[in-house]
Amino acid sequence: MKKQYLLAPGPTPVPPRVLQAMSMPILHHRAPAYKAVFEEVRDGLKYLFQTKEEVLVFASSGTGAMEGTIANLFSPGDKVIAVNGGKFGERWGQIAAGYGLEVITIDVPWGTAVKPEDIADCLAREGNVRGVLTQASETSTGVMHPIKVIADIVKKYDQTILVVDAITGVGVFDLPMDAWGLDVVVTGSQKALMLPPGLAFAAVSQKAWGFNQQSTLPRYYFDFAKELKNAKKGQNAYTPAVSLIIGLREVLSMIKEETLEGVFARHARLASATRAGVQALGLELFAPDAPSNAVTAVKAPEGVDGQEVVKVLRDDYGVTIAGGQDHAKGKIFRLAHLGYVDDLDVLTGLAALEMALMDLGYELNERSGVRAAQMILKVKK
Amino acid sequence: MKKQYLLAPGPTPVPPRVLQAMSMPILHHRAPAYKAVFEEVRDGLKYLFQTKEEVLVFASSGTGAMEGTIANLFSPGDKVIAVNGGKFGERWGQIAAGYGLEVITIDVPWGTAVKPEDIADCLAREGNVRGVLTQASETSTGVMHPIKVIADIVKKYDQTILVVDAITGVGVFDLPMDAWGLDVVVTGSQKALMLPPGLAFAAVSQKAWGFNQQSTLPRYYFDFAKELKNAKKGQNAYTPAVSLIIGLREVLSMIKEETLEGVFARHARLASATRAGVQALGLELFAPDAPSNAVTAVKAPEGVDGQEVVKVLRDDYGVTIAGGQDHAKGKIFRLAHLGYVDDLDVLTGLAALEMALMDLGYELNERSGVRAAQMILKVKK
Repeated sequence: MKKQYLLAPGPTPVPPRVLQAMSMPILHHRAPAYKAVFEEVRDGLKYLFQTKEEVLVFASSGTGAMEGTIANLFSPGDKVIAVNGGKFGERWGQIAAGYGLEVITIDVPWGTAVKPEDIADCLAREGNVRGVLTQASETSTGVMHPIKVIADIVKKYDQTILVVDAITGVGVFDLPMDAWGLDVVVTGSQKALMLPPGLAFAAVSQKAWGFNQQSTLPRYYFDFAKELKNAKKGQNAYTPAVSLIIGLREVLSMIKEETLEGVFARHARLASATRAGVQALGLELFAPDAPSNAVTAVKAPEGVDGQEVVKVLRDDYGVTIAGGQDHAKGKIFRLAHLGYVDDLDVLTGLAALEMALMDLGYELNERSGVRAAQMILKVKK
Repeated sequence: MKKQYLLAPGPTPVPPRVLQAMSMPILHHRAPAYKAVFEEVRDGLKYLFQTKEEVLVFASSGTGAMEGTIANLFSPGDKVIAVNGGKFGERWGQIAAGYGLEVITIDVPWGTAVKPEDIADCLAREGNVRGVLTQASETSTGVMHPIKVIADIVKKYDQTILVVDAITGVGVFDLPMDAWGLDVVVTGSQKALMLPPGLAFAAVSQKAWGFNQQSTLPRYYFDFAKELKNAKKGQNAYTPAVSLIIGLREVLSMIKEETLEGVFARHARLASATRAGVQALGLELFAPDAPSNAVTAVKAPEGVDGQEVVKVLRDDYGVTIAGGQDHAKGKIFRLAHLGYVDDLDVLTGLAALEMALMDLGYELNERSGVRAAQMILKVKK
């Protein structure tokens, strides 16, 4: 018997009550019963995104909503700035270039956050930039970008919108869309939303809807205006992923019960315990200066292959974490702590990591990573 | 207590063993355990589509795969013929036009099948047509188009591919992709595949892959070549809808157990019983000459609003069927019999329909629709 533990930055574990809700006989998506569910979901999403705007829902993975954002808000030749500090930053550039946009890339060393002044300089220098595309949390490096500061810069430009891939940001840390003036916020179902993959979300500001009216790019399945029109009638333009929507109602109600503040505080606590744990083991954080509360990227110690850490954890301990991607492959591993994760999950992950490192010949110092995390997590501080 | 019966042309009921499979804790999509599932799924899909080609899988509804087909195989200005005999035929034209293709529409009266000679004439007259876009089964009208005959016509043209939306065709009636020489066959999860909505499929012939190399349209999420490359490594380009893929393995194994021949025979029997049942009640079929085995469209009798039939069935009897769309709204209703549906489901639907019609003041003749269907369904003929 080997139990399985999922500590990857998506998909994340699905709570039993959500699995149960999704196992109910399927609803027809034009039936009044579905409409009632979807209305509840629309409200819950507005709470989650902290916005008065409609949060569009698509049956796709998060990348679909990223592509939809480009195809619905821009036109060929439009100049955009893409913050590229990892695999997902790279993706913004690829999609935008694929649609014929002119992409100015701000390359950010992996493991560090973009410097807001670089965005400010670039906007001033380039002129006529239509959009700034960034991540809130760059999943591949475990970095959190300073979205509020960036938003304050971008909002000075009437003709520029700020597009935030918050796929591992929404429901992890505070990203109040309306209060900060974010123009597009994108997320997916399999991260902090604790659902199986298959739903993507895009919330769109009034400023961005103005861009939509000028956009000339082709789109059909990810047609934002069509989806908005349908959503306002409690419907979806195309057949929605009904069972995931049923599950979504359940997770949104869980989030409301915990409150957003509670959700953010939990993620902050788990992230802080994880960081303390790995540092106690003598390991270095890959993103020490701007760590995301979604996932902790850790440098593989001298002489240990990060991919081996992932493999031993999975094969010998039943714990799924993530390795590094591209040039970070083998050099880092990533412990996630977002979604349906609690204090003891973090300790489980650290305990398994300690054993895996020993198995791989890494000499642990005398400090216990588990103990360091416990000191943060224990109830009486 | 009111039990719910789903007899709509998608979503269709999900078998308990599939719901159960999808309720297992989530797998990580890059883990070996997922890869093993996906390899099984790839094989099962080839059996289902009757093809040696790869069947691409997307997290989206069927429309996503339709759009992907246009965006991956054609270029702006390409001339295509779109068979328009209902809501979904209309959709081919909309997507193709949206991407800047030149669309020649063959308008087919709703409730009838396209005449293959019209396609032959159009191909000869127009010259230089790159694609013929059609449905196998037009869900909005309950019509089956003569795909084999159309394929024989199109295959005479080296520079033309046949694209078949078989969203309510695959797994319903025989559509052997390789044997008939179909170039693209598209389907979705929530029809004969007995799954919740959220997966779309596209099988692509070698001839069509040649088109892919020349296509200049933008695409990212629905990138066929990228998906093919990943599939061959047992992976997906973007995070797949893991729980639906797990369910898919289960339904594909159910289909293999029943055999394709068995599946087609069952759908033929259910369709034939449904048609006999409604005709015994004195009702007229909307598509008497080319009925699809997926769904039976029935003309609402004089003095009865088709939408009311749908409403009474749903509200008073717990039976969800579909009404007519656009100009057929109120004039027809549609009883589906595809997916996880058996003989007694058909009788249940007919029995409820008889009561609903009586409730709506329709005077039934002396013949019983249920009895007419029973004569087809009973074991000893």
